[in-house]
Amino acid sequence: MSDAALDFWFDFASTYSYPAALRIRSLARQTGVIIRFRPFLLGPIFKSQGWQTSPFNLYEAKGRNMWRDLERICADLSLPFERPEPFPQNSLLGARVALIGLAETWGEDFCEALYRAQFSEGRRIDNPATIADVLTGLKIDSVLVLSNAQSDKIKSELRAQTEEAERLGVFGSPTFITADGELFWGNDRLERALLWAKEGH
Amino acid sequence: MSDAALDFWFDFASTYSYPAALRIRSLARQTGVIIRFRPFLLGPIFKSQGWQTSPFNLYEAKGRNMWRDLERICADLSLPFERPEPFPQNSLLGARVALIGLAETWGEDFCEALYRAQFSEGRRIDNPATIADVLTGLKIDSVLVLSNAQSDKIKSELRAQTEEAERLGVFGSPTFITADGELFWGNDRLERALLWAKEGH
Repeated sequence: MSDAALDFWFDFASTYSYPAALRIRSLARQTGVIIRFRPFLLGPIFKSQGWQTSPFNLYEAKGRNMWRDLERICADLSLPFERPEPFPQNSLLGARVALIGLAETWGEDFCEALYRAQFSEGRRIDNPATIADVLTGLKIDSVLVLSNAQSDKIKSELRAQTEEAERLGVFGSPTFITADGELFWGNDRLERALLWAKEGH
Repeated sequence: MSDAALDFWFDFASTYSYPAALRIRSLARQTGVIIRFRPFLLGPIFKSQGWQTSPFNLYEAKGRNMWRDLERICADLSLPFERPEPFPQNSLLGARVALIGLAETWGEDFCEALYRAQFSEGRRIDNPATIADVLTGLKIDSVLVLSNAQSDKIKSELRAQTEEAERLGVFGSPTFITADGELFWGNDRLERALLWAKEGH
């Protein structure tokens, strides 16, 4: 089973993707599963369901529960938690930069660090200065990367990822998809998805 | 901690409430928590959010995932699973009968048995004959109970339960609420809710 693999689809604005992103690498190592990080944008997918913003904003009771639930989950994981304002944040630039990093060697570290910036420190990820700080923290040339992030190549790569996500039936973040096409949605399905990736059922 | 208690709010039509209802009594026993079964109707709560049917019907990808996810969950629990048609079923009569049983001694057994009838056997719970069969299986006088279920007392009791659920912020089923007001939503939060009920955090 050396080729057990799992695609991890995520939008940086997604709240439950924060604990998922910070748990997935060590859990995957323990299970012996290779993770492929797949950033995408939920916005276009929400829009095609008729939502102009996060359902957590549209449905108040659902939103109130999510914030409290996330707070409990982070406390259980000893993960700092700061509620980002505004919510959801525009994750476009972060996703483009992640694509660049994932084609090089620093993508996964960048994803973790950007989730931390937003949900541990309450920083705005739609501010290029936040992204630049995160890159600098990883010893990456932020000027070069932020310029590449505006290239047509990266823009169309991200559009293609989002279209692929929608085609695969992704409707929320985090979503995990095994090599045999089994889809799991939600931070609380991560362990089960890894097991499926490993054992095929 | 002899008074650790947890309210279990559920609508019989709710899919994820099936594994929750069949797991809760033994898990509560293991944890030393007293469960109070609180049937209510999701319909009025969905309507006040602008939904005329289950969000699993309104949002196709979400619905597709739920059925597959539930199938996996039931397989993991070795719980038979049959997809009920139509979905969601009208749970009014079941909820009224449950209220009668919960004021007597057979309410929890009835709840389990009605969930099984719907989700293990694919029977229609909006059919009084199904409810009668379930009652008979528990050696309860179904004619008497089905007549009581139409009394003004039971009708207004169920309305009051549903209003209380909405007031408490319940927006889905299953929902678990501790004595100190902590709300947990979803079958996958049951263990955490029991722990909170037991330890107060």
